[in-house]
Amino acid sequence: MGFRFLPREFNFFDLFDKQVDYAVEAAAVLKEIAAMGAVDAAFLTRMGEIEHRGDDATHSIIEHLNKTFITPFDREDIHKLATQLDDVVDVMNTIVSRLRIYKLKWSEQSLTEFAAVIEHSVRQIELAVKGLRKMKDVKTIMDSCVEVNRLENVGDAMRDRLLADLFEREKDPIAVIKWKEIYQDCETVLDVCEDVANVVESILVKQA
Amino acid sequence: MGFRFLPREFNFFDLFDKQVDYAVEAAAVLKEIAAMGAVDAAFLTRMGEIEHRGDDATHSIIEHLNKTFITPFDREDIHKLATQLDDVVDVMNTIVSRLRIYKLKWSEQSLTEFAAVIEHSVRQIELAVKGLRKMKDVKTIMDSCVEVNRLENVGDAMRDRLLADLFEREKDPIAVIKWKEIYQDCETVLDVCEDVANVVESILVKQA
Amino acid sequence: MGFRFLPREFNFFDLFDKQVDYAVEAAAVLKEIAAMGAVDAAFLTRMGEIEHRGDDATHSIIEHLNKTFITPFDREDIHKLATQLDDVVDVMNTIVSRLRIYKLKWSEQSLTEFAAVIEHSVRQIELAVKGLRKMKDVKTIMDSCVEVNRLENVGDAMRDRLLADLFEREKDPIAVIKWKEIYQDCETVLDVCEDVANVVESILVKQA
Repeated sequence: MGFRFLPREFNFFDLFDKQVDYAVEAAAVLKEIAAMGAVDAAFLTRMGEIEHRGDDATHSIIEHLNKTFITPFDREDIHKLATQLDDVVDVMNTIVSRLRIYKLKWSEQSLTEFAAVIEHSVRQIELAVKGLRKMKDVKTIMDSCVEVNRLENVGDAMRDRLLADLFEREKDPIAVIKWKEIYQDCETVLDVCEDVANVVESILVKQA
Repeated sequence: MGFRFLPREFNFFDLFDKQVDYAVEAAAVLKEIAAMGAVDAAFLTRMGEIEHRGDDATHSIIEHLNKTFITPFDREDIHKLATQLDDVVDVMNTIVSRLRIYKLKWSEQSLTEFAAVIEHSVRQIELAVKGLRKMKDVKTIMDSCVEVNRLENVGDAMRDRLLADLFEREKDPIAVIKWKEIYQDCETVLDVCEDVANVVESILVKQA
Repeated sequence: MGFRFLPREFNFFDLFDKQVDYAVEAAAVLKEIAAMGAVDAAFLTRMGEIEHRGDDATHSIIEHLNKTFITPFDREDIHKLATQLDDVVDVMNTIVSRLRIYKLKWSEQSLTEFAAVIEHSVRQIELAVKGLRKMKDVKTIMDSCVEVNRLENVGDAMRDRLLADLFEREKDPIAVIKWKEIYQDCETVLDVCEDVANVVESILVKQA
């Protein structure tokens, strides 16, 4: 078997930490862009690079899964957690791409507010996922998961308010189509954070 | 271990029953709204309350999972079933919110027809989920799951017909955007019911 | 127990092969339609028939799961693989229905390009899923999964380019609504192929 040559559990947590760090970085870039009023090429490149490094970390986790004999928790949960953390960065990258593709400019506070909630949720994901390494304080991890769920509801209400306002104010249907999708995507980041929190919860549930 | 102080299996089925009852109630409210031609504040509040009680039941299931030693079926399936039953109510709540946010009024039968199919599907979900408690008549549970799958196809065809009609008749692009999303959401309720049926099927499959 | 009367593992692979063959067939029909510039009734019928046969294969897998004592891999992975392969054909069927419902006609190359990427991805899915039967060459199966992931990124970029072009060129908002959805659906086929590849990967991971 030769499994003494195989890593035990060290690598997975290091790689999850990387994935989470990329998500935090992406949320910070999104916040900067929201404050700028438009996406310039430099921001597009920065976000694209974060997304690319996130992909590498994800693939590395999946490759390690195939070579590692003992894993810290169920192999399928590691796989699920890795692919969903990847999704968090992917959706933020999608938002930035679309803002650019749709040639959008903005002056109002809408994106700034959403970017703040997204950053908050990603920070809770960071606490939850980094908490899995030592599994010392289950209560704190669960609290972060509950907060991610709460923020998803906040995001729902925020999107609904922004859409009501959009339909009230904007008479150009093409602009409605574009902004409606952006607000929806912002809410999707919070949905995917909730998916991550659900996986973390189900990992805790199995270890209970 | 002290697991004699822990509930065995009683609570989960009671809480699943609650979740399913909320889904049935939400489907009934949706049907009433469809017949009204507009969403007034009272309906919005009623649906919001159902959704809120549904959230409480869902969180209660997840908390119990962490404290319960013996579960009636796989912990992850309990988690999945709880979150997806939660989704059924969530999507119906979303529809009602959107009808209100978009300030829609209607006279035609479109929503009434969709609400009837949704109610039918939710009733089959009720049979399937409540059937899990005794697991006595697997054939009947499976039949309900097959019916939920059939109704999802009915919903697909209904949405397609309504969209074809919408694009034919409605020349205001903003109205097209709004109604297209509502019809899509109605179909999503049936998709999520199908997700629930798939979990029920996979629970049966493992017990086979 | 009498499990000697129960099929061992033969049927599942045969049925997965069928599902994959239907996906390959659907991708070929989609390619033909893309080259035609409109969907006539005959194409709609052909795609509907493939989808129907795909449904039958999927239900047959789920029924067999309930009667089979020994399965080639985890029962829940068989269930997941079956339902997601079903989705691949479903989304292609949805595209063809919508092209018809929206009464779209086209002369440009957009759909042809997308149909080619879809066909490529479905072929990799075919290699990956058919590879599971003998599980002889894990490296080749993994390579197909990586390629499906790469094609999903290609599809993202293609959809973004087509949307940028659509918003630039098309001034009729109703036409924007219709085509935006079609391009999105084309990209969804590649997403669902990626879901299939992820299940295949997670099956390999567990057998590692």
